Amino acid sequence: MYQFRVLSKTQYLSQVDRSHKKDFNPISVPERLLLGPGPSNSHPDVLRAIAQPPIGHLDPYYIDLMGEVQELLRYVWQTDNRLTLPMSGTGSSAMEATLANSIEEGEKVLVAINGYFGNRLADMASRYKAEVVTVEKDWGEAFSLEDIEEALLTHKPAIIAMVHAETSTGVCQPMEGIGDLCVKHDCLLVLDTVTSLGGVPLFLDKWKIDLAYSCSQKGLSCPPGLGPFTMGPRAEEKLSKRKEKVPNWYLDVSLLNQYWGSDRVYHHTAPVNMNFGIREALRLLAEEGIENAWQRHRSNAEKLWKGLESLGLNLHVAEALRLPTLTTVVIPSDVNGKAFSSHLLNKYGVEIGGGLGSLAGKVWRIGLMGYNSNSENVENLLNLFDTELPNFREKLSSAA
Amino acid sequence: MYQFRVLSKTQYLSQVDRSHKKDFNPISVPERLLLGPGPSNSHPDVLRAIAQPPIGHLDPYYIDLMGEVQELLRYVWQTDNRLTLPMSGTGSSAMEATLANSIEEGEKVLVAINGYFGNRLADMASRYKAEVVTVEKDWGEAFSLEDIEEALLTHKPAIIAMVHAETSTGVCQPMEGIGDLCVKHDCLLVLDTVTSLGGVPLFLDKWKIDLAYSCSQKGLSCPPGLGPFTMGPRAEEKLSKRKEKVPNWYLDVSLLNQYWGSDRVYHHTAPVNMNFGIREALRLLAEEGIENAWQRHRSNAEKLWKGLESLGLNLHVAEALRLPTLTTVVIPSDVNGKAFSSHLLNKYGVEIGGGLGSLAGKVWRIGLMGYNSNSENVENLLNLFDTELPNFREKLSSAA
Repeated sequence: MYQFRVLSKTQYLSQVDRSHKKDFNPISVPERLLLGPGPSNSHPDVLRAIAQPPIGHLDPYYIDLMGEVQELLRYVWQTDNRLTLPMSGTGSSAMEATLANSIEEGEKVLVAINGYFGNRLADMASRYKAEVVTVEKDWGEAFSLEDIEEALLTHKPAIIAMVHAETSTGVCQPMEGIGDLCVKHDCLLVLDTVTSLGGVPLFLDKWKIDLAYSCSQKGLSCPPGLGPFTMGPRAEEKLSKRKEKVPNWYLDVSLLNQYWGSDRVYHHTAPVNMNFGIREALRLLAEEGIENAWQRHRSNAEKLWKGLESLGLNLHVAEALRLPTLTTVVIPSDVNGKAFSSHLLNKYGVEIGGGLGSLAGKVWRIGLMGYNSNSENVENLLNLFDTELPNFREKLSSAA
Repeated sequence: MYQFRVLSKTQYLSQVDRSHKKDFNPISVPERLLLGPGPSNSHPDVLRAIAQPPIGHLDPYYIDLMGEVQELLRYVWQTDNRLTLPMSGTGSSAMEATLANSIEEGEKVLVAINGYFGNRLADMASRYKAEVVTVEKDWGEAFSLEDIEEALLTHKPAIIAMVHAETSTGVCQPMEGIGDLCVKHDCLLVLDTVTSLGGVPLFLDKWKIDLAYSCSQKGLSCPPGLGPFTMGPRAEEKLSKRKEKVPNWYLDVSLLNQYWGSDRVYHHTAPVNMNFGIREALRLLAEEGIENAWQRHRSNAEKLWKGLESLGLNLHVAEALRLPTLTTVVIPSDVNGKAFSSHLLNKYGVEIGGGLGSLAGKVWRIGLMGYNSNSENVENLLNLFDTELPNFREKLSSAA
């Protein structure tokens, strides 16, 4: 009979390759204040929740907790969508889930690009064999209703995907009225709310958003690792009529719904500890009240903007389009932006972000998100800019 | 100008729908001893690591930690593969990653099915437009070298996928010699090591495995949420020559390698806290020594098998093929298996699993994995079977 050989410990020892057996010290994570584009610091109660011993993914207690997570996600997103759940991956996996579950091969998908994440949507959509078309704006601007309607008329897409809060530029895309255009032109609307959920006013159902996704590590004050996902009735109907299986097993909502819905059919082993965390994060947000959280983000952002401008710095985005969660600051021409942000991290443990894509080297990105959106953090950061930035300005040559 | 409307708190309050704003209590997770098919309990040091405040995914400390995780994964898998990293999802996402990165549309993929997870491989492979063919064995048996060679000769597949440790049946598939057949017949070998990594002797490079995946919540003593993934040189070469992009952005190893490799190009925001956890879990396993962990799993499993048999219970799998990490116990015909396992969970907080698929209702599944593989757990569980199981035996009718 062909069986597996059970050797003695000594025999195994002689076979084991120890070249990758490194002797590392116990983990010791440095303290950081995360004021970049994310992750943001987590609420201490959320970290305590994540450290609870795991339980089974079909445990009656866990099944109840799943329902709680879904219900509170509906609250913070302001939606009644039945299919609202956190994907077992980061925000990018939820982004991919919105496309994988809505695109059928050969369909036209219009992506509105005014930053890095619009480009990512276009790349992803192409992998699901969509015919991708785009409408573009400069990085730092938003689309008007006319821009969107013109693009819908020109391309007649089955789906339009756009970004509510562009983390790469700091622009908040106004959404009122766009959903009505999509209904009128018979097209599904996919919205990236990664940097808005929990921090920026967001009315998914009022705005007629068909699919949306977000992340756990920004406005929700939880570590990264879960990707909130939601799908409305029009998208659900399309899913039920698909000709082919969703071309991504892990993110297939028709399978996931058998686990998250009433049947509780095993799909994959849930990341239970991360779900302990998001449950607690959402509970804390509901306790605060979503309108209070929005207000808090707004007033701390305004304080930051005022402070930065009073230090003589310029903000990249016009005030009317500025995100309360993420501010892009123009790096002065006589400053090495990377050297300054490395200095803040290494000397003060404060993380701020650099620019992405076409804004690389041109802006810093400052996040005030979730637990980190408070006036003490704003004051500390403004003090650091005030005292440290002058040391990074290149001396003008005496000849000048 | 089209801008987003900033309302006052009172105005927002009047617009906010509070129907999903539920007032839940702070989280309070019940204590469980997880002796089912997984998750298993985590090592307390791992839970402490996961609860550290997050840091940035491009923080120099985090970059070092990524390298540590990769190096220790190579050790526990016994591989030199450069492309060894944890996928930012559960084990199923890593399963999907092995297929998404290796299959090109229209290729023939042979799946060796002797349990539930073989079927999952076949379903997933079909979504990547493979021509899926199968070779099958009863649930509880393993494939012989002759079975595999005959199937390779018959189907001439580009890829064969099989399961080292079938969690649904408790069978350990002997692997010595199969990799040589795959080289001979010019076919890539994908191996599921979800229930073997860290607990069952596993020599990825010696066995010539081209792609493998696992999970964090079994032999590694970490919560679920990461999917270790590895890809050898033959698979890497195939990936580099693909005609089309990998049809899954999130799991595309050619992109992930730009982040995990030396370039450190941002792909997605890593689940940093889960990676704190797996780093610590792998460090503890290296400290123990992989051959000692194998031996520990083996001796605790043997103690369990002997104890169950001395209670008059039958094991589903022949001893020569039994997994040390997962034991399938035949449910006596006069016992309601589900009622007994619910009793253990509700009264003692001890989780054991039921059967899946064709073994549903026929077996219990008992896991002794990672941190939970110790003799105290074996003794406690045997005591529970000894004292509680008789109460669940149906009385024979007096007429019998």
